[in-house]
Amino acid sequence: MEIKRLTELLNEKKYAQIKEMLSEMNSIDLADLLEQFPDDSMVVLFRLISKETAAEVFANMPNDMQQTLISTFTEKELKEIFEDMYMDDTVDILEEMPANVVEQILNVTDKETRSRINELLRYPQDSAGSIMTVEYVDLKKTMTVRQALDKIKKVGIDQETIYTCYVIENKKLLGIVTAKSLMLSDEDTLIETLMETHIISVNTHMDKEEVSKLFHKYHLIAIPVVDTENCMVGIVTFDDAMEVYEDEMNEDISLMAAVQPSDDSYFETSVFNHAKHRILWLLVLMLSATITGTILSSYEKMIASVPLLVSFIPMLMDTGGNCGTQSSTLVIRGIATDEIQFRDLFRVAFKEAQVSLLVGLALAVVNGIRILLMYQDPMLALLLGITLMATVFMAELIGCVLPLLAKKVHLDPAIMAAPLITTIVDTFSIMIYFGVATMLLGL
Amino acid sequence: MEIKRLTELLNEKKYAQIKEMLSEMNSIDLADLLEQFPDDSMVVLFRLISKETAAEVFANMPNDMQQTLISTFTEKELKEIFEDMYMDDTVDILEEMPANVVEQILNVTDKETRSRINELLRYPQDSAGSIMTVEYVDLKKTMTVRQALDKIKKVGIDQETIYTCYVIENKKLLGIVTAKSLMLSDEDTLIETLMETHIISVNTHMDKEEVSKLFHKYHLIAIPVVDTENCMVGIVTFDDAMEVYEDEMNEDISLMAAVQPSDDSYFETSVFNHAKHRILWLLVLMLSATITGTILSSYEKMIASVPLLVSFIPMLMDTGGNCGTQSSTLVIRGIATDEIQFRDLFRVAFKEAQVSLLVGLALAVVNGIRILLMYQDPMLALLLGITLMATVFMAELIGCVLPLLAKKVHLDPAIMAAPLITTIVDTFSIMIYFGVATMLLGL
Repeated sequence: MEIKRLTELLNEKKYAQIKEMLSEMNSIDLADLLEQFPDDSMVVLFRLISKETAAEVFANMPNDMQQTLISTFTEKELKEIFEDMYMDDTVDILEEMPANVVEQILNVTDKETRSRINELLRYPQDSAGSIMTVEYVDLKKTMTVRQALDKIKKVGIDQETIYTCYVIENKKLLGIVTAKSLMLSDEDTLIETLMETHIISVNTHMDKEEVSKLFHKYHLIAIPVVDTENCMVGIVTFDDAMEVYEDEMNEDISLMAAVQPSDDSYFETSVFNHAKHRILWLLVLMLSATITGTILSSYEKMIASVPLLVSFIPMLMDTGGNCGTQSSTLVIRGIATDEIQFRDLFRVAFKEAQVSLLVGLALAVVNGIRILLMYQDPMLALLLGITLMATVFMAELIGCVLPLLAKKVHLDPAIMAAPLITTIVDTFSIMIYFGVATMLLGL
Repeated sequence: MEIKRLTELLNEKKYAQIKEMLSEMNSIDLADLLEQFPDDSMVVLFRLISKETAAEVFANMPNDMQQTLISTFTEKELKEIFEDMYMDDTVDILEEMPANVVEQILNVTDKETRSRINELLRYPQDSAGSIMTVEYVDLKKTMTVRQALDKIKKVGIDQETIYTCYVIENKKLLGIVTAKSLMLSDEDTLIETLMETHIISVNTHMDKEEVSKLFHKYHLIAIPVVDTENCMVGIVTFDDAMEVYEDEMNEDISLMAAVQPSDDSYFETSVFNHAKHRILWLLVLMLSATITGTILSSYEKMIASVPLLVSFIPMLMDTGGNCGTQSSTLVIRGIATDEIQFRDLFRVAFKEAQVSLLVGLALAVVNGIRILLMYQDPMLALLLGITLMATVFMAELIGCVLPLLAKKVHLDPAIMAAPLITTIVDTFSIMIYFGVATMLLGL
């Protein structure tokens, strides 16, 4: 609706009206909206966005749109956009741009900013340093609340958050003062008496996933980042932490479905890349499944003499796979939320063993009744009952142990999920099935 | 370490030292810590927490600990705790308590609070109303910044957030003023000129999952909740929205692994409940898999004459299941993040069809080479190549279409995930396999 109206106004060159329409939207909706237009219209629309929001809209755009826009900017425009942007957003953009564009951007920033950007670019890709911003409000402990509020009024407009201020002495972080406590306190109160000294802070090299977990645990708006000498170097704000949290979640879910994770969304990913992200695991799993097939073919004679045996294979394989999926998923989630550690291995395995006995028994009984009704063959019911219980037991154990072992050797536990577990469990369930059949049916 | 030290101090009855230790921790860590102690020590420790943090620690505890504590509280203590608690936390606790405890709590709250609590309890379980709090700062548009700041100083201490204030006239929400704009503005500025009137708000009945998505999209700290007459009734704060977001994520992941979702964590859930959460889907899937088995047994004669055919069944079933898992997971995630809608059905299906051709071809070639090397049988390689391509094609289509259909009929798309898709795909892949075998091998 908005798109249609804007396209009409663009065709009629009614720029004043467009300007008014755009001025009523927030920067995130604007970035979403502009994405719907072809490049040439998008460039025109972007220039009609008010100066104050343009940088924010730009920061919220996908990389390819940013690149298109940069190619149309004059040096002055480029300078304006990047002057209005927060440092962490600038660094995010630079990390995704080709070298010549990076150079173009760095050329228009002033010397001091450039050196700070270069410093930020040096932090390892998944570290707290790589997602932090260096723009925050610093206070002195000898200030009064009134002096602090005056300082905020002077420098606050350029800071990403003013709701948490940092009390610094000789570059060291002494304490934290929230805007709430400043606003609720008497004007003559000393910052020293107001500041919270039990600080939750992170090191520049901490994994950004761990940082995002702290935000979730303590409901933080910002967290201070210190270097190895405990000097304050920046802050991570909650919007960036939320993004990290979502990305990690998506990465885990992809891995659990045997898809190589990617930052691009479904439609953004080309057919070729979709195929690329899926083929590797499919090949590995297909070739592993041939092992199950080879084992199965070694029972050829048994199958030839009791062909009915084959008809239970899908049910056994699926049930084993499903049980393994259930326990591995629960354990992978437990590891991700820090509830389960490697040292809990035996506790988890014992719990899963108990669960598997209950579950296996229920499945064996239901399936036994079905077989008695359909085939009136108690021996067959017994064979499948024993196989089911053993398969479930083994599937749940493998499902809970493998993710913990992966964690121990510093692999992502999420790769030990449904598809891989299923393949492993398949092999064992076939072996159990024909092993038990040999004994029970005397084949 | 802390636990050991505290246990020692408890045994030596050195309460002053314990008090000091506890005073240095924040409420969330305290709640975590107390969880590690047996009930009797936990109750003693809780009484040693300072009055100011006790309510917050209490709000962060699991329900069973809260219940244990309430049973030891005097009426006066109960009153103090619940007076210091925010309304939304109180309601959260009441929703989980047995009726007699609810009565006990309501008895100690004053009449006005009680009627507000009762109102909040009436909102549907998954609605914005059920997670909102009624404690927020309201301003008038005719106020100056100084008057606004004075009002915040007076009422702010009891509000869950003061960083977003709401301009109200005749109960209607006119605009929003952030603490940032108040702190950065001149004292004589009128609120009317400062307030943001393009407001993102939600209705009391909006699904809380949708509310939490707005927080993620717009990086909000709080969102106003209005009733059907557009009157302001409360706010949802970002900590509650984050919790909803996490819960929904966990629910989706559970469903995708065919586990009935539960709010309890892995270790909190008893063996019996673990089994209960898993058995239903396992039974359904096991019985569905018997269909595949029945179809398989109808090819008994073919299997008896070419027993080698059986050995490829695990590979076909696994590959089909994996492809279905991949596409269904990507589509379920796309639906959850609002990227994919039902109207995209054909667009998604077309994309998946293309991906499946690439992937299927690659798998068929690799598998064909393997078969030629192992069995020197081009006909067998051809049979499996065709079957693989058809299976992959069908698996990816089923995998992407079913979640979208579920969405259309208002089921959770996550139930159309790996386990169910695998079972469905299995049946078809067996049919394709033997169908093609009949034609190619002339059986």
